[in-house]
Amino acid sequence: MRICILGADGYLGWPTALHLSARGHDVVAVDSLVRRRWDRQLGAHSLVPLASMESRVARWQAESGRIIEWVKLDLCNETALRDLIARTSPEAVVHFAEQRSAPYSMISSRTCVETQVNNVVGTLNLLYAMHDLVPDAHMVKLGTMGEYGTPNIDIEEGWLDVEHNGRKDRMLYPKRPGSFYHLSKVHDSHNIEFACRIWGTRATDLNQGVVYGMSTEETDLHPQLATRFDYDHVFGTVLNRFCVQAAIDHPITVYGTGGQTRGFLDIRDTVRCIELACLNPAERGEFRVFNQFTEQFSVQGLAEKVQHARSEHGLQTRIDHVPNPRVEKDQHYYNAKHQRLLDLGLQPHYLQETLIESVVHRVEKLRRRVRPDLVGASTVDWRTGGPAKERVPTARESTVEATGRRTGGLGAAGGRRSVAAR
Amino acid sequence: MRICILGADGYLGWPTALHLSARGHDVVAVDSLVRRRWDRQLGAHSLVPLASMESRVARWQAESGRIIEWVKLDLCNETALRDLIARTSPEAVVHFAEQRSAPYSMISSRTCVETQVNNVVGTLNLLYAMHDLVPDAHMVKLGTMGEYGTPNIDIEEGWLDVEHNGRKDRMLYPKRPGSFYHLSKVHDSHNIEFACRIWGTRATDLNQGVVYGMSTEETDLHPQLATRFDYDHVFGTVLNRFCVQAAIDHPITVYGTGGQTRGFLDIRDTVRCIELACLNPAERGEFRVFNQFTEQFSVQGLAEKVQHARSEHGLQTRIDHVPNPRVEKDQHYYNAKHQRLLDLGLQPHYLQETLIESVVHRVEKLRRRVRPDLVGASTVDWRTGGPAKERVPTARESTVEATGRRTGGLGAAGGRRSVAAR
Repeated sequence: MRICILGADGYLGWPTALHLSARGHDVVAVDSLVRRRWDRQLGAHSLVPLASMESRVARWQAESGRIIEWVKLDLCNETALRDLIARTSPEAVVHFAEQRSAPYSMISSRTCVETQVNNVVGTLNLLYAMHDLVPDAHMVKLGTMGEYGTPNIDIEEGWLDVEHNGRKDRMLYPKRPGSFYHLSKVHDSHNIEFACRIWGTRATDLNQGVVYGMSTEETDLHPQLATRFDYDHVFGTVLNRFCVQAAIDHPITVYGTGGQTRGFLDIRDTVRCIELACLNPAERGEFRVFNQFTEQFSVQGLAEKVQHARSEHGLQTRIDHVPNPRVEKDQHYYNAKHQRLLDLGLQPHYLQETLIESVVHRVEKLRRRVRPDLVGASTVDWRTGGPAKERVPTARESTVEATGRRTGGLGAAGGRRSVAAR
Repeated sequence: MRICILGADGYLGWPTALHLSARGHDVVAVDSLVRRRWDRQLGAHSLVPLASMESRVARWQAESGRIIEWVKLDLCNETALRDLIARTSPEAVVHFAEQRSAPYSMISSRTCVETQVNNVVGTLNLLYAMHDLVPDAHMVKLGTMGEYGTPNIDIEEGWLDVEHNGRKDRMLYPKRPGSFYHLSKVHDSHNIEFACRIWGTRATDLNQGVVYGMSTEETDLHPQLATRFDYDHVFGTVLNRFCVQAAIDHPITVYGTGGQTRGFLDIRDTVRCIELACLNPAERGEFRVFNQFTEQFSVQGLAEKVQHARSEHGLQTRIDHVPNPRVEKDQHYYNAKHQRLLDLGLQPHYLQETLIESVVHRVEKLRRRVRPDLVGASTVDWRTGGPAKERVPTARESTVEATGRRTGGLGAAGGRRSVAAR
């Protein structure tokens, strides 16, 4: 298949591009590289050294004999996006190209607006481009399990059969997510469902759980094929961060009681799920939703798994419970269905202590690259934003803020700068 | 109460400002005047001549002795908005300030993106400003009944009690709206509910039906106090347009069979509903939803009401069924609850033929201002966009489009111009 991967420079986009290329698909890898800029702005970085996209596709050709075309492009540039879709005429478009950090979206009004505009506009531009230029192609969109929040009933895959006052309907599953980032994906889902309904767009919304792991079969072929690995408190995700904390003998920081339960999956399953979705496209007009995860864990449960894996080697790991900077329930019902990708043939890699040990071991080898200030609990609070934020600036202060000094480091980047929507 | 009215130059914003001022509230009237610019761009106009905001507030002071402060401001300018909120310290903020035409949002990708960015960013900026500066103030937000779409079950007021697999939860009512404009309001509702949940924001989301009528007690005091009256196919709403068609002996244009059923209300009830919401604020952290309409009608039923009102005076009015440019069901179940504003004391003005006659009569006196090309069925099609739109532009064409020529008239404005998100 001819497949465009949008967001191909990311943690999951790059391994997906490699995986699909390895399976014989013609892959166009597209990214604006904004994530590398955000790293610089926030003073963060990938623990694993990253080659340039040019080096990566050259290395992939050398290793595999297969060509991945690399295109630098921002989805918010509608003209460039339309030119890409017209020129490449893809059968499937895999859309990872969004700002994907909940804490980033909660730093300030500026990062909140940036996140929602970037994600919603990019997806709208893509919907229009596909409708106008490749109306039979299939959009495979990365959503998130976080769209659902933590309802007190079972989470179904995107749709819910409702009976009310003696009448029935099949309705979109109600969403009540936990950050302005997660909300941006809820907005995307509503926009995509509408496009399916009025234009006959084919779309699969992959509500993905939290991904863990450092590598896939293809990224392991050469250091230049490695994907990024985030461990800072803005872009790092929970199990990956716990492994880094353990590797450098930092306490594992659990938010609140750690009863927060979520769906998780191995990065090797992510790339396989994407291929399964591409190979089995949605029908014309179908808004299809898969819950893309393989197991549920509580945050506390994950911390204990890491602790246990380490103790097998005689190593002590402390678990610290810190005040939760997020507003979320830390004790709640959680039972999310995730059958449809299994029905398509997914064979999960369930979480084993050997995986945890392997990640910790690889982090230990990169230990000199770890910046200790990025390892601890988040300084972005859901109630008050980034650390430098003024709680109640006066009119005079908010004018002063607009002058916006740029300084380095995550803390400083959290400062409120009043900036009009772009 | 100190009340800011955002979007105070609009069809409903201006009468609301007058009504609240007449009731003794201190009103700040805020608008960017973008709607007057859209009129010029689209070649549309208000049938009723509009005074400038400066003339209006001066005239209001002369007539009533009361002062309305007028502020020109765009909500997407966060710094200016924060200065306003800090300086005026409102107890309630009434938020009408959005692009509110479904057809406008469906002209092209450009107007779709413009609509969603304008509406979502303005609301996000307002949520942040209120959270930081007046956390106890009450946001009264204009939503739309169109957020719900036409589910096959009863429409409740914002929330739905769900029982599923033996467990229960109170969930946000699932939304499946009918245009990119309506979707922007769905996005707003999700963002506002989140702010209530994490920040303790007080918010009332008024899911308003289709408003009809030309005037209120206050706008009738002087021609300079009149509010706008739209009859074009982009901004005009259904009953108002039918009255204009009848007044100039144009056939009434019903889309499809006309079985589309919606909630409606008199403009005099809109202003009263807003006051009731302000006087009875939501609790801290409460996301309160009122369905703001008084009666349900089908489009065909309204056309027949106008026809009947005219025939009482011996006048013949033809009803034409034209192909529906929208994608929507024209036969469907519809039963929407609207109890909560009645519980607060709303005494509805139900639709009577005398109101229709009065509107038609006033239009007849303005007949020389009616532009016949704006009266007929819409040229904006949900499937194909505005009339000048290229269905499948090639890469070369989409580059040419980006040069964007501006020409007058609704048709030309419908042309696709590729413009990146602002």
